[in-house]
Amino acid sequence: MDFKFLQELIVPAKTRIILLIMDGLGGLPLEPSGKTELETACTPNLDALAGKSVLGLTQPAGPGITVGSGPGHLAIFGYDPIEYEIGRGALEALGVDFELGPDDVAARGNFCTVDEKGIITDRRAGRIPTDIGRELAELLRTIKVDGVEFFVETVKEHRFAFVMRASGLGDALSETDPLKVGVPTLPVTALNRESEQAACYANRFIKQARCLLADKHPANMITLRGFAKLPHIPTYPELYGLKSAAVAINGMYRGVARLAGMNVLNVVGDTIADEFATLEKYWNDFDYFYMHVKRTDTCGEAGDFAGKVRVIEEVDAFMPRLLALNPDVVIVGGDHSSPAVLKSHSWHPVPVLIHGRYVRPDGISEFGEHACSRGSLGVLPATHVIRIALANAGRITKYGA
Amino acid sequence: MDFKFLQELIVPAKTRIILLIMDGLGGLPLEPSGKTELETACTPNLDALAGKSVLGLTQPAGPGITVGSGPGHLAIFGYDPIEYEIGRGALEALGVDFELGPDDVAARGNFCTVDEKGIITDRRAGRIPTDIGRELAELLRTIKVDGVEFFVETVKEHRFAFVMRASGLGDALSETDPLKVGVPTLPVTALNRESEQAACYANRFIKQARCLLADKHPANMITLRGFAKLPHIPTYPELYGLKSAAVAINGMYRGVARLAGMNVLNVVGDTIADEFATLEKYWNDFDYFYMHVKRTDTCGEAGDFAGKVRVIEEVDAFMPRLLALNPDVVIVGGDHSSPAVLKSHSWHPVPVLIHGRYVRPDGISEFGEHACSRGSLGVLPATHVIRIALANAGRITKYGA
Repeated sequence: MDFKFLQELIVPAKTRIILLIMDGLGGLPLEPSGKTELETACTPNLDALAGKSVLGLTQPAGPGITVGSGPGHLAIFGYDPIEYEIGRGALEALGVDFELGPDDVAARGNFCTVDEKGIITDRRAGRIPTDIGRELAELLRTIKVDGVEFFVETVKEHRFAFVMRASGLGDALSETDPLKVGVPTLPVTALNRESEQAACYANRFIKQARCLLADKHPANMITLRGFAKLPHIPTYPELYGLKSAAVAINGMYRGVARLAGMNVLNVVGDTIADEFATLEKYWNDFDYFYMHVKRTDTCGEAGDFAGKVRVIEEVDAFMPRLLALNPDVVIVGGDHSSPAVLKSHSWHPVPVLIHGRYVRPDGISEFGEHACSRGSLGVLPATHVIRIALANAGRITKYGA
Repeated sequence: MDFKFLQELIVPAKTRIILLIMDGLGGLPLEPSGKTELETACTPNLDALAGKSVLGLTQPAGPGITVGSGPGHLAIFGYDPIEYEIGRGALEALGVDFELGPDDVAARGNFCTVDEKGIITDRRAGRIPTDIGRELAELLRTIKVDGVEFFVETVKEHRFAFVMRASGLGDALSETDPLKVGVPTLPVTALNRESEQAACYANRFIKQARCLLADKHPANMITLRGFAKLPHIPTYPELYGLKSAAVAINGMYRGVARLAGMNVLNVVGDTIADEFATLEKYWNDFDYFYMHVKRTDTCGEAGDFAGKVRVIEEVDAFMPRLLALNPDVVIVGGDHSSPAVLKSHSWHPVPVLIHGRYVRPDGISEFGEHACSRGSLGVLPATHVIRIALANAGRITKYGA
């Protein structure tokens, strides 16, 4: 993707684009000859929209590659997820809705158990309840070191997000978790000169944490891994001149959207209905909306085929409300596949439809994996979707004469 | 495109390839569920040929990108149109069939109106009639400056192509048109050291032009913009060992063909019939023919759906004559889409068929956008077409043992 080339062709327009993402949308049939979750779902509204759309199957990171939600979203937002990698620590911080700044170094933290010699006996501190994790996080927040600001945010049970904020920190840092018991935790070492200061801050934090937690068995020590800053990503306003907004409930999706320069809207409540209400409320304020539905993925990962079908049907029922807003371009797709039979994310290409007044409709009135495989978009990199949407929204001018 | 890799595999053969381009071939239906121009046209010969061909949809410069005819042709000729950019000035010169040399710096010229203080009052000199433009071009041709040769070619009304010929000229030059009235024209400034001589020549030309035109109100001054040399492009003879010829009437297409090293044939007359007669006349002299039909695009840009349908039908009627020549490989396609409903070029992928004795036919006896979207070529970069044609013409040998 040559952003510079595209950027020079961008022109303003008074059009609105909606990208509706059902997380983990792509699926698999229960039996080889059967239907996928999306094909099983009764989706009269999506099927009708498909008939007026171009269809295809998106690949977030090329053939055979299964992606996490971070790279999956970067891809459907138009960014090469291999070029723009979001490190684990940064994803963990985004996941708890932490507003990670460009200079922040984040890490995934674990409470763990060590014996009197500092030897790890349980890497997860017996999976302490989340409430206890919160209390201990409060304690860790009292740690102060000159020149740096620390943040500790509980994720779940023994997990927390750790962030160091100071200017000029590098993130090439070794992990302290030896990934086995029977050995001590490791010190943080800088893997390049730019990261030496950060290693020093992290080690001083760990030293103080060890003292504060000494009597908090089983959570009497911490490990830190996946140190990472956010990648610098050219934003939607910079690239496309789009006033863009995100309607998403879960932290990570909000975080990736923020990274792309979107305004992350406040959703009151946590249902799909609440998300559609938010879309309607802010409809006049932006010209691009990303909307995220999480539960398709949750069901897929849980192996709940019928549950995933029901979530898709629920989304389908909201489509008339979405279309009543008269968007110029509508994209419906996913960030990756999460087939219930696999109980996990998968590499299978993901159904997508792009609707707009100027698409050349494929005339296939069905939204599903097999229908999309016959669509004129073919199997395409997920990163291409935004370009086609922008073209259909009148936002890309002619190249050359 | 890795030309070096391909070039090493090229072998000679006694085969002939025809590339028939209907300009702006791709279209859109008038109604979402309707047929495009190509699908509406009655094309028994193209449909029969499609049944013995592989079909697909070409993208000249990637998803969502609308191209001009210059980049559209470069792409279908096999050149990445983003890597090989033809500047505006060079396109203008090619458009009037000027034989632009590799050292020439071309620009788009306008006659304009200035007041006694040199302030622009009309950037187009009241769109003077083309005849007046020709007379004034004659006058400008009298301008002489040591060390450089100038060419002035009328385009239409107030527009002309301007060319400077001298060795070693750079084309990084600022434009003299301020793009608004109420301000004076700007001097040409060199944007790098290599272009300083060219800036000097251009400014001396402009100075003399101002004197010569002083009493020619409303066309009493000129502006120059889009300074550009031709890109250096490896030619068909160099790349493929092809003795190649172009059958085209309009200057720009002839110019781009010349750039690719094709012999531009003299077409007597300006009808499609005249073009086919030219093809037949020279059939034994070359092993690759590019043939260009302009009016599909003209109708598309004019919003004339029925007219575009008729031009396609006219071309279809000539197909038996084309096939009677027994070409080894026939490509029928377009350089870009020009849907009548948009009255402009567009980003929609363009139908293409490749026929030859050794293609694996898709068995789809219809040439149209939807039929091509079901073809085995899928959605492919336009640059790939020449490779597939060369392979089918027995001109690419095996890679590796």
